[in-house]
Amino acid sequence: MKLGRLNHVGVATRSIEQSLATYRELFGAEPSAASFDLPAQGVRVCFVDAPNAQIELIEPLGADSPIVKFLDKYPAGGQHHLCFEVPDITAARAHFEGKGARVLGPTRIGAHGTPIFFLHPKDMGGVLTEIMESPKQAH
Amino acid sequence: MKLGRLNHVGVATRSIEQSLATYRELFGAEPSAASFDLPAQGVRVCFVDAPNAQIELIEPLGADSPIVKFLDKYPAGGQHHLCFEVPDITAARAHFEGKGARVLGPTRIGAHGTPIFFLHPKDMGGVLTEIMESPKQAH
Repeated sequence: MKLGRLNHVGVATRSIEQSLATYRELFGAEPSAASFDLPAQGVRVCFVDAPNAQIELIEPLGADSPIVKFLDKYPAGGQHHLCFEVPDITAARAHFEGKGARVLGPTRIGAHGTPIFFLHPKDMGGVLTEIMESPKQAH
Repeated sequence: MKLGRLNHVGVATRSIEQSLATYRELFGAEPSAASFDLPAQGVRVCFVDAPNAQIELIEPLGADSPIVKFLDKYPAGGQHHLCFEVPDITAARAHFEGKGARVLGPTRIGAHGTPIFFLHPKDMGGVLTEIMESPKQAH
């Protein structure tokens, strides 16, 4: 196991539109594509590209969204998770489970269309950590 | 203004050594250099490199450290700030001030030896944002 690419930083927001307005106004940044729903995660997402990594703006999709509680606690929004890439999600899951790290829920398809899972923040120094299989075409 | 490189994600911890043990155990990651004190920021720092960006582990340096309160609130540690690069810190500061964003404190020398300042999280969707002049040799 080697620390892989930091694919993105997940930033929770009550309003992707409002966050995009901020990135546009302060940084001249535009989203790399339109926002889209990710029902498996209970969020609506939109990516803003820095030259080397992405900011993933995530907005609650429905009242049961897992980020509703986060936004109740941090009404202004804020950093929600970090996402690192791995070459093989099945091997990575076995690796982390073998190390005793708590994996949250099943492996599922993430915002980039590749399989992902999350590691419990208590096993990663307080940081909710997404592990994502690298898109094949990108490497 | 264009959104620059995501230089690093700042992660607060009570113990850099303990965080390094976690990154080593789970990701096989080693710090890119030894930890060092940054008295101007009131923190001790250590960088762990992903292939495209860095994790900056920050530990309080003294009881007056600005991250003591953060760690009181989040005893396990957690994501503290994002740092984006700009080509010219003076122009960037004028740009953000001109946009009405609150700049926190004076421009000072940051962990990579180049000038930095911070934007108030309330003006960046809840994300404390460091703006850092790119190291000259890196580009």
